[in-house]
Amino acid sequence: MMRVLVTGPTGFIGAHCLRRLHSEDCKIHAVNRAGQGETNARVTWHAGDLREAAQAVALVTKIRPTHLLHCAWVATPRIYGHSPENADWLQSGAALTFAFGAHGGVRFVGVGSSAEYDPGDVPCAEDATPIRPATIYGKCKAAFWLAAQAAAQVHGFSAAWGRIFLPYGPGDPAQRLVPSVLASLRAGKPVQTTHGAQQRDFVYAPDVADLIVRLLLSEEVGAFNVGTGQATTIRSVVEYLAARCGRPELLQFGAIEPPAGDPPVLVADMTKVHDRLGWRAATSILAGLDRVLAP
Amino acid sequence: MMRVLVTGPTGFIGAHCLRRLHSEDCKIHAVNRAGQGETNARVTWHAGDLREAAQAVALVTKIRPTHLLHCAWVATPRIYGHSPENADWLQSGAALTFAFGAHGGVRFVGVGSSAEYDPGDVPCAEDATPIRPATIYGKCKAAFWLAAQAAAQVHGFSAAWGRIFLPYGPGDPAQRLVPSVLASLRAGKPVQTTHGAQQRDFVYAPDVADLIVRLLLSEEVGAFNVGTGQATTIRSVVEYLAARCGRPELLQFGAIEPPAGDPPVLVADMTKVHDRLGWRAATSILAGLDRVLAP
Repeated sequence: MMRVLVTGPTGFIGAHCLRRLHSEDCKIHAVNRAGQGETNARVTWHAGDLREAAQAVALVTKIRPTHLLHCAWVATPRIYGHSPENADWLQSGAALTFAFGAHGGVRFVGVGSSAEYDPGDVPCAEDATPIRPATIYGKCKAAFWLAAQAAAQVHGFSAAWGRIFLPYGPGDPAQRLVPSVLASLRAGKPVQTTHGAQQRDFVYAPDVADLIVRLLLSEEVGAFNVGTGQATTIRSVVEYLAARCGRPELLQFGAIEPPAGDPPVLVADMTKVHDRLGWRAATSILAGLDRVLAP
Repeated sequence: MMRVLVTGPTGFIGAHCLRRLHSEDCKIHAVNRAGQGETNARVTWHAGDLREAAQAVALVTKIRPTHLLHCAWVATPRIYGHSPENADWLQSGAALTFAFGAHGGVRFVGVGSSAEYDPGDVPCAEDATPIRPATIYGKCKAAFWLAAQAAAQVHGFSAAWGRIFLPYGPGDPAQRLVPSVLASLRAGKPVQTTHGAQQRDFVYAPDVADLIVRLLLSEEVGAFNVGTGQATTIRSVVEYLAARCGRPELLQFGAIEPPAGDPPVLVADMTKVHDRLGWRAATSILAGLDRVLAP
């Protein structure tokens, strides 16, 4: 039976992936610093700090997973983009993937990001858009994917990589766009945002998990976009939330400056995913926001 | 005064760089496993195994170099392309560059490779040719350059990267093309090679060192090709050596198969180097081979 090691299983994306894996016929090993999380018959919890290469290697040596789903990474909102901790995840991730291969691993899937791409290329296609990351996060993610491919080549396992665009949905950390806007609206406080004209590929987190887990269970090799292929402005998302809360007067577009280098458009080309996996996102942006809005 | 830390100072390229640095006004710290090498008034030798991240960090913390010239990497002929040791160099290199930045480093130059490029793109241009490395070596070099750029961004130092094409010249390890062909010719043994039609950008090692050190002393940021911009077939190099040794009858082209994926052409586009540094390789392929042939 598949032994799947899931890292970052209590993070935003990792938790959705873990839940999605519950319905698959496999033994799941989940690791986080606390060594605990949601209880499920399939899941064994392990305590470990995967930023330490030695701990990552020891864990893989003990569990000998056949499948590795690597979701762990620094993801603190507003911090992660430029945190030096990204380098720790790169280093320990390289050690982790090589140890995984050395101990019989057969299938790796890791969580990448649209931040790896040159955002000047619209839409971003996995094998055509240049990898030209602006942030520390994007650079270290892209470097790690190269390292994971090197491990796959040395040890003969198969490897795929999901580059996630703009995920939202249940479990979204409070400081990120949708929950923070909603919290302000519900508290009757002004919602201060950038101009909002940025077009983004919003993707519902359970859909993200579905594609990531399908990738894990497939034999497809390479990078795959995780998005919808559809661009939506940040402004229209914020306006919809305000309308549904009945508080449009709280919106203050342009109150804050966008970060330097904020791309006007960041949207996935989903052709490769459609062609190779037959997958399309199940949840439209309005359906997803409605679920987030539901009490 | 500049404090330059040179890693790999007794390797093929590193030794040429170290010698080239002797003529610059700087204090040089050289590190290798033995802690010794060519004596020079400017150079202090240190013992350390840089594959160990902790040793790399300790060394940088002690020396606090202003400049880091990172030549160390696995380079054993016929082994390095697919050695898992490439991952150790990636991991320790990430730790090294972040520690360098954290301890006041201002300028980094690292040794990259034409193996990082998609070889289907001819000639290879630094900012246009896709990074699509076939080997473990190429993947880990490309990953390390991303990590070094992340370190530069976190700590605010400037970073450049020299992608070396096919270096040859004094100090070339015995198993590599030119010395191994010469040794066979001089011993009167058959020279068994591939078909030899592959076109390569042969670059004389002292020219390589000159460009790498100029990069180190400049403020140019980004990747730079280290080549001549000229393609020469392996066959013509081998034939010239045989002719000069008076042993053309020893040549057996096609006696061995080229490695899988061996690109037909691998040549540098030197436009960016010409434009930004005003540099051109001083030594033609025949002048370089003549120097190698000289007793």
